[in-house]
Amino acid sequence: MRFDVLILGSSSATPIYGRHPTAQLINVNEQLYLVDCGEGTQVQLIKYGVKGNRIKHIFISHLHGDHYLGLIGLISSMHLVGRKDELHVYGPPGLEEIIDLHFLYSQTELRYPLYVHTTQDKTESVVFENENVRVSSFPLSHRIACTGFRFDEKRRLPAIDRDKVAAIGIPATQLPSIKRGQDYSAPDGTIHRWQDLTIAPNPPRRYAYCSDTVRTSSYLPYIQQVDMLYHEATFLHEMLDRAVATYHTTALQAAEIAVEVGARKLLIGHYSARYKDLKPLLQESRSVFPAALLALEGNWYPI
Amino acid sequence: MRFDVLILGSSSATPIYGRHPTAQLINVNEQLYLVDCGEGTQVQLIKYGVKGNRIKHIFISHLHGDHYLGLIGLISSMHLVGRKDELHVYGPPGLEEIIDLHFLYSQTELRYPLYVHTTQDKTESVVFENENVRVSSFPLSHRIACTGFRFDEKRRLPAIDRDKVAAIGIPATQLPSIKRGQDYSAPDGTIHRWQDLTIAPNPPRRYAYCSDTVRTSSYLPYIQQVDMLYHEATFLHEMLDRAVATYHTTALQAAEIAVEVGARKLLIGHYSARYKDLKPLLQESRSVFPAALLALEGNWYPI
Repeated sequence: MRFDVLILGSSSATPIYGRHPTAQLINVNEQLYLVDCGEGTQVQLIKYGVKGNRIKHIFISHLHGDHYLGLIGLISSMHLVGRKDELHVYGPPGLEEIIDLHFLYSQTELRYPLYVHTTQDKTESVVFENENVRVSSFPLSHRIACTGFRFDEKRRLPAIDRDKVAAIGIPATQLPSIKRGQDYSAPDGTIHRWQDLTIAPNPPRRYAYCSDTVRTSSYLPYIQQVDMLYHEATFLHEMLDRAVATYHTTALQAAEIAVEVGARKLLIGHYSARYKDLKPLLQESRSVFPAALLALEGNWYPI
Repeated sequence: MRFDVLILGSSSATPIYGRHPTAQLINVNEQLYLVDCGEGTQVQLIKYGVKGNRIKHIFISHLHGDHYLGLIGLISSMHLVGRKDELHVYGPPGLEEIIDLHFLYSQTELRYPLYVHTTQDKTESVVFENENVRVSSFPLSHRIACTGFRFDEKRRLPAIDRDKVAAIGIPATQLPSIKRGQDYSAPDGTIHRWQDLTIAPNPPRRYAYCSDTVRTSSYLPYIQQVDMLYHEATFLHEMLDRAVATYHTTALQAAEIAVEVGARKLLIGHYSARYKDLKPLLQESRSVFPAALLALEGNWYPI
């Protein structure tokens, strides 16, 4: 099953050096989820060949402009190109009021159903779930209410071991129950254990998105053992004071957190405008977490 | 005196084909004015080498997203790069409420003074004036409250004819009053008419910005005899029904209006996403107004 993330924006605060404010697209089994939606996200989607109308769910971490100012434009463009499908937006208190006010003054009556779901930043909670994925929000520590999001792939049923099943001569009608964990009793009385008749699925993968936050231990329980951790790394560690003052994190801290929670991969992003060259940020992260990667716009990263 | 317009966005409604939603920069004697501010305008300013902090006044025609969704991001970025100078924004009722709501939830306290001035769409009114220019808003006919803006260059004093003044031997202390229209009485009693001692300045130029509007005669009094008319031309005339239904204009109508008001130049823009190739729109306008030009992003047009 496909489970990848496309970086649409990697810049913090202001667009610069061709980098855009934060947005990511998650593909889970060919269903698309948008996480944050900085100004210009709709243009980035076009640039990377993504049809906006394939997105059914948008998750907004917080109401700093660089994380959501592209949302009204994207919602409007979906309307203008004739979208009919529901759109669900998940975000902090205030987001619905802002959307409503824009559409009040533009006198826009959307041609598709828009549902705005309010997240809360006090505890972890499941905000969306379907057959492929469960999405949870969890509190981060930023200057204003801010949540991360975790995408947990659903555990899939094992695959039938076709060769073994054929060798034993098990009828096809029995296969669904075997997949669901029931042993097979052959006509001669032999019991075949379902584990011996199936191939175990890959363990479900987990992706955690942490932007923006100062380093605390409070959110680590929510990102334990993820397959990929996206963590903001706004500054080099030499700017730690500035990171703390602005409720952000350094590239070193992001890597330390990845180690601490046992993440398999680390993707850093949300780069300050002071870094035209990103290599020092990457080197700093890799000094602690050698598998760290830079979030680069237009790149797909498998989770 | 410089009086030029830079096109930052030429698309209607949605960004497409590398075209951006509406924004224009007017340079009057090296002072910069922004007219409309579609999503991504701050990136366009960077692209074309314009420092956002040189802009002191922003004029918003109406509250459809493609004309103002870049404003909050631009105001925020000016804040983040340490702007101290006042910023004045002129726009319809509701704009201030929208700005306030964004900054309420982002808990932003701007480090510079921001003044939002509410325009009204019932009559023409002067919204800004300094030594170089007078900016007036005037009502257009769109689905929601919408104004155009006219930039009237101020009449300048004539220049002294240095040769004549030297030949007569007029003392320098007399020159300011001559420039202001006072005749010179020589010690021998001869009266020298100020007109004979000065060189008339170029007549003041006028630029009118009309977007978005359906064609009516109601706004023509406000754009008479302008040196350059920017007029939306969202559709080809074969789409007249659609233009009327959406309160927009065709390329033919824009040209007819330019003829009717005696405009010296015509700039068309606000192109529908249905036109990848803009030549047919230009040809249609030129069939009526041969000097018509396409508004193309990144181009400066002298007024």
